[in-house]
Amino acid sequence: MNSYQVIFLPGDLVVEVQAGSTIREAMDLAGIDFDFPCGGRGKCGKCRVHVPAGTGDPTATESELLQPRELEAGIRLACEARVHGHMTVELPRQLQHNILMTSGERTYRIEPHLKKIFVEMAEPSLDAQHSDWHRLKDSLAGRGYNPACLEIPVALLRRLPDTARRAGHRLTAVMHGSTVAGLEEHDTVPVMLGMAFDIGTTTIVGYLLDLYSGEDLCAVSTLNPQTRFGADVISRITFANREKGGLNRLHTAVVEAVNKLVGEAVKKAGVTREQVYGVSIAANTCMHHLFLGINPGNIAAAPYVAAVSEPVVAGAGELGIDINPAGRVFVLPNIAGFVGADTTAVLLAAEVDRSADIKLVIDIGTNGEIALGSGERMVACSAAAGPAFEGAQISCGMRGADGAIDHVKFQDGLSYSVIGGGKPLGICGSALLDTVAGLLELGMINKRGKLLPPEQLTGEAAGLKDCFVEHGGQPAFVLAGAGETGHGRAVMITQSDIRELQLAKGAIAAGIRVLMEVLGVEPGDIKEVLLAGAFGNYLNPHSACVIGLIPPELESKITMIGNAAGTGAKLALLSSGEYRRAAGIAEYVEFVELGSYPRFNSIFARGTYF
Amino acid sequence: MNSYQVIFLPGDLVVEVQAGSTIREAMDLAGIDFDFPCGGRGKCGKCRVHVPAGTGDPTATESELLQPRELEAGIRLACEARVHGHMTVELPRQLQHNILMTSGERTYRIEPHLKKIFVEMAEPSLDAQHSDWHRLKDSLAGRGYNPACLEIPVALLRRLPDTARRAGHRLTAVMHGSTVAGLEEHDTVPVMLGMAFDIGTTTIVGYLLDLYSGEDLCAVSTLNPQTRFGADVISRITFANREKGGLNRLHTAVVEAVNKLVGEAVKKAGVTREQVYGVSIAANTCMHHLFLGINPGNIAAAPYVAAVSEPVVAGAGELGIDINPAGRVFVLPNIAGFVGADTTAVLLAAEVDRSADIKLVIDIGTNGEIALGSGERMVACSAAAGPAFEGAQISCGMRGADGAIDHVKFQDGLSYSVIGGGKPLGICGSALLDTVAGLLELGMINKRGKLLPPEQLTGEAAGLKDCFVEHGGQPAFVLAGAGETGHGRAVMITQSDIRELQLAKGAIAAGIRVLMEVLGVEPGDIKEVLLAGAFGNYLNPHSACVIGLIPPELESKITMIGNAAGTGAKLALLSSGEYRRAAGIAEYVEFVELGSYPRFNSIFARGTYF
Repeated sequence: MNSYQVIFLPGDLVVEVQAGSTIREAMDLAGIDFDFPCGGRGKCGKCRVHVPAGTGDPTATESELLQPRELEAGIRLACEARVHGHMTVELPRQLQHNILMTSGERTYRIEPHLKKIFVEMAEPSLDAQHSDWHRLKDSLAGRGYNPACLEIPVALLRRLPDTARRAGHRLTAVMHGSTVAGLEEHDTVPVMLGMAFDIGTTTIVGYLLDLYSGEDLCAVSTLNPQTRFGADVISRITFANREKGGLNRLHTAVVEAVNKLVGEAVKKAGVTREQVYGVSIAANTCMHHLFLGINPGNIAAAPYVAAVSEPVVAGAGELGIDINPAGRVFVLPNIAGFVGADTTAVLLAAEVDRSADIKLVIDIGTNGEIALGSGERMVACSAAAGPAFEGAQISCGMRGADGAIDHVKFQDGLSYSVIGGGKPLGICGSALLDTVAGLLELGMINKRGKLLPPEQLTGEAAGLKDCFVEHGGQPAFVLAGAGETGHGRAVMITQSDIRELQLAKGAIAAGIRVLMEVLGVEPGDIKEVLLAGAFGNYLNPHSACVIGLIPPELESKITMIGNAAGTGAKLALLSSGEYRRAAGIAEYVEFVELGSYPRFNSIFARGTYF
Repeated sequence: MNSYQVIFLPGDLVVEVQAGSTIREAMDLAGIDFDFPCGGRGKCGKCRVHVPAGTGDPTATESELLQPRELEAGIRLACEARVHGHMTVELPRQLQHNILMTSGERTYRIEPHLKKIFVEMAEPSLDAQHSDWHRLKDSLAGRGYNPACLEIPVALLRRLPDTARRAGHRLTAVMHGSTVAGLEEHDTVPVMLGMAFDIGTTTIVGYLLDLYSGEDLCAVSTLNPQTRFGADVISRITFANREKGGLNRLHTAVVEAVNKLVGEAVKKAGVTREQVYGVSIAANTCMHHLFLGINPGNIAAAPYVAAVSEPVVAGAGELGIDINPAGRVFVLPNIAGFVGADTTAVLLAAEVDRSADIKLVIDIGTNGEIALGSGERMVACSAAAGPAFEGAQISCGMRGADGAIDHVKFQDGLSYSVIGGGKPLGICGSALLDTVAGLLELGMINKRGKLLPPEQLTGEAAGLKDCFVEHGGQPAFVLAGAGETGHGRAVMITQSDIRELQLAKGAIAAGIRVLMEVLGVEPGDIKEVLLAGAFGNYLNPHSACVIGLIPPELESKITMIGNAAGTGAKLALLSSGEYRRAAGIAEYVEFVELGSYPRFNSIFARGTYF
C-alpha cells in the first residue's frame, strides 16, 4: 500500500502514513496534542486544519459542518479528511496554550524540546544483515528524520542491541534534535513530564509540568541549602573562593536540593522520576553559575563578568540531575553579572520584548533588577537595595512568614494585618513601606527621613501620639505594644529602620531614574509598571509610590505579575520557541552598570529623600 | 588598520588578517602546514599558491622566480604575495602527503579532525561586560567560525574563567567541528599528535603520528590481553555473555592495553599523553564492539548482526582513553558482523574503491576476509579458515616467531629458513604452505590430500625418501630431524596437518569462488591480488597458488601490501576526508553471507581438493 508524507506546520513535524489514513491518525502518529471535542466523531466541526492539497473531496460531514468559503480556502476537518498524497497540514491557533499568571493569562505554543518517537524496527535476517543502529536510523528516517544527521552516544549504542531484542524491536526513541537521547522499550510516547525551577538565593521553587499539555501537576519548594554557607550572593561567592572545595559544596548542595524537589514533586503527583525528561532553570547569575558548577568569582569584582550568559543545555547526567537519563537541562540565559536568568525569565513571561509600549519591570529582592523599554529597545540594571525589603537589618524585621505584620493602615486609627492571623512577631518589608508611607502622609516624617516629634500630630492622627516612643536612644513608632504581640515585646519601627528603607528605596529609585535617562523617557512615557517577585506581589503600590520607590505618576499603572521568573522557567521548558526567545531577550537587553554611570551618586542621594 | 578574510581551498579554512600580511602569515594563522624549503626568504620559489584576486602586483622576487604564464594564471609565492583584499587561496598539490606501504606509497591529504586555534580574547571592562564564553566566541568568529553554531560542554565552561585569566586571555581552543573540545593556556598550536590502532584478536599495534605532518613517530605493539579470556572471537563472545561482568572485563582489558601502548609510544618518542588528541581504531567487528563496550553477542548467532557498522566518534573520556581530555576517538566503520573495520581499513589503504580495475583483496587470519571488485561494485565475505594458517592445530605448528621454520624449499634437496636464525622449534603457516606445495609438485600428495608412500619418489627427489616417516599411526614428512632442532624433537608435518590445511585453504578458495560468481567474473578479469596482513606478507605466493589457496592464474598478479589495516587506521586518523571515505567504503561494499549462499557446501568441498 502507498504511504505519504504529512508535514505539520508550524514546527515542520513530518510523519509518513498509509494512504487513506485520516489527518487525525497522522496527528496521533506525530504525537501532536490536538483537541477533538466530540472525540473525532465528525459531530462538532472543531478540528479545523488548513490543507492546501493532497486530500480528496470533502466528505458529507465536512460539507455539512464547514462553510463553502472555508472549504474553498482549504479548511478541512482533521477527523474526516484523508491522506491521498504528500501534504502539508497547517495547524490552527487551537495549539496555542495559555499559562496562568497573577496578571492574567499568557499565551504560548507548546513545542517540546524533546520528542518521543515510537518505532518498530525491522528485524534482521540473513538477507538483511544491517546493524541495529542502521535499522533504527531507517525507522527514524520513516518518521521524517534525515538518517545522515542522526547521532547516538556510545552509552546508548551499548544498550541498543539488548533493548531492541527484549522489546521485540518495538522501541521509543527519545529525540533531542537529531540526537537519540534515550531508548525505551515499547511505546512510552504518552508520558513526558518536566520540571521548571526558579532557584532563588533563599528559596528554590519547582513546578512539575506535563510537557504535552502544559498542565501544572504540582509545585514544591525548599530553602536553598546554600544559605548555610552564606545568606547572600556575595557571601557565597566568598565561600566558593575561600573555603576548600567551597565551589563544589555549593554546587552539590543546589543539585541535591533540585533532586530532592524532583522526588517530592513526582511523589505528590503519583508519577516517577523516570517520566521527567526536561528541567529548566531560572536563577540569578550567581545561582546560575553555582548550579552549573562554574565559579561565580568574576561576578563579584569589577568588571563583574559572567562566565557564560548564553543558554546552556546539558544532559541530566552531566549535571547530576536525577531524572530520566535521556533528560536534558535547559538553563535560561543571563543578561549580565548582576542581571541574571531570573530576570530573563521575568521578561520572557511579561512579553515586554513584544510590546510596542514602554514598560517598567521591577523585581525587588536583595538586589532589585529593573528593566525599562519596549520590543524596540530595553535597558536593565541591578540596584543593590540591600536586605531591608526582606525584613533584614530592620529592628523588628522578619521575612513575610507567619506572625509578620504585612500591611498597616492609618485610616480610622492604626490597624494592621498579620500573616497567618495570629499575634504579631515582627514586620516584613511591605508593612515597613506602609508604615513609612502612612507617617509621611501624616507629615510625621520629613523629606530627609527624620521622624518628627508627635506634638505635631493634629486632628484624627493625634490619636497616634502614644505610638511615638524613644527606643535605644532614638525615636521609634510602635505598631503593636508588648501586650499585643506573640513574644511580649513591642513591634516598632525606629529611626534607623527608616534610614535603612531610605537606602533601599533610594537604590531602586536611582536605578529607575538612570534607566529613564539612558532611554530618554519620562514617567509619562511609561505605559505600565510590572512588579514581579514575592515582595513585588505583597507591597501596597500606593505606599511604594508615596515613599518614592516608584515614581508617583505611575501608581495607577502598576500591575503585580507574581512569580514571573517561575512562569518564564515554565515557558522555556514547555516551548523551545520560548526558550529561543529567552536567548533573544538576553541578547537585546542592554545592561547598564549603575556604578559607572555618570552622576550616579548624586542621583542615588536624591533618591533617598522622600 | 583594515583586515581581510583569506579563504584557503580546499578545506574552506577562513582567517582574518591585517592588510599587508603575507599569505604565509595567513597560513601560519590558519595553522596550515606548508613547506617553505628556503625558510620563506624568497629564494626557492617553491611556495607556489593560486590566488585569483586580492593581492597586489608581483614583487621583484616573484617576477624573477615565476614564469610570466604562471603569473598570468594567478600563481604567486606565499612568502612574497601580500593580502590587499578579501581573497581565496588555492593550495597546491604540495599538501598531498604520502604514506609508505609495503607495496609503495599511498597519497593522501592531511585534514586533521581537530583544529587548534590560538586566540587572544578581549579582556572584559566596565564598558564591555560580555561573558567569557561570549568573548571566546567573538575571538573564534574572527577565525572564521560562525558564533551561532559554536558549542562548549559544561565541563569546559567551568574551566574557562580561570584558564583565560591565568593565561592573560591568550588561549588555544581545540576545535572539533564547531565544538570547543579543549582549552589550553597560551599558544599550543604547534603540537598535535595522534595514535592509530589496529586491534587484532591476538595483537594490538599502535602508531604514534604527528597530525600536522603525518610523520610516523614510532610503533608499539602488545598481545591483546583479552586472549586470557579466550583465544578467538567466538570464545570471547561466549565469555562476554556467560561470565559475570564478562563484557566489562573484556572491554576494560583492551582499553587498558591501548592506554598502556599510548604510554609506551609517548615515552619512546619523548612526548606526553596530553599532546595526543586523536585515536583511530581499526578492528574486526568483535574487537570493535568490545573496544566500545558493546556486547558482540548478536554477531555470533544468525543473522550475525552488528550493533553498529557506521563510524563511531566519541570523546576520549567517554571511552576511558587516557590522552588529552579534548581528544576524540575515531572508530572505523564495519562492513558486516564478520567483515569488520579492519577490512574497511585495508580497503581504504588499498584504494580499491577508486580502482577502475577489478581487484581481489585477501586478509588471511583465523577468519579470512576477502573482497573482490572495483570502484563500481565490490563484494566481500568472511571465510572461516580456522587457525591452521597461524600454526595452531598443526602438530608442530607455531606462530611466526623466533624458532619457526617460515620458508621451505625443495630445490637441490630440502632446505628451510628459521625466523631468528637459530635452531628450529616448529613451523609456521607459511612453511606449512611451502611444504605442502613442494610435496604436491613432487607428486607426493594427491588431489585429495593423501600423502603417498615414498617409494614413488624418483630422480632428484628420491633423496627425500628418509623424510617420510610414520608418526602416531599416520604418515608424516620430517622437515628437521630430532638432532637438528632446538628442543630435540623432530619437526614434521603429518597427514592430519595436511587435512587441516585443506580445510583452511578450502574455506578461502571457496570464498573467492563465491565472490567471483556473485560478481560474475573469472580469474582472467582480476587485474591484481592484494595480500594484506602478517600472514599474507609472509607466504610464498607461488606456494599459495600451487595449493589452490589463490587461483593459479593469478600468481603473477599478487602484491603484498603488508599491514594495510594499520595503514588504513593511520589514514583515517590523519585525514577526515579519508575517514569519510571509509564510511563510504563500509556502505558500498556488499557483504555476502557464505553460509546462506546456494551450493556453498559443494563449492567448499571442491575447494579442499588440491
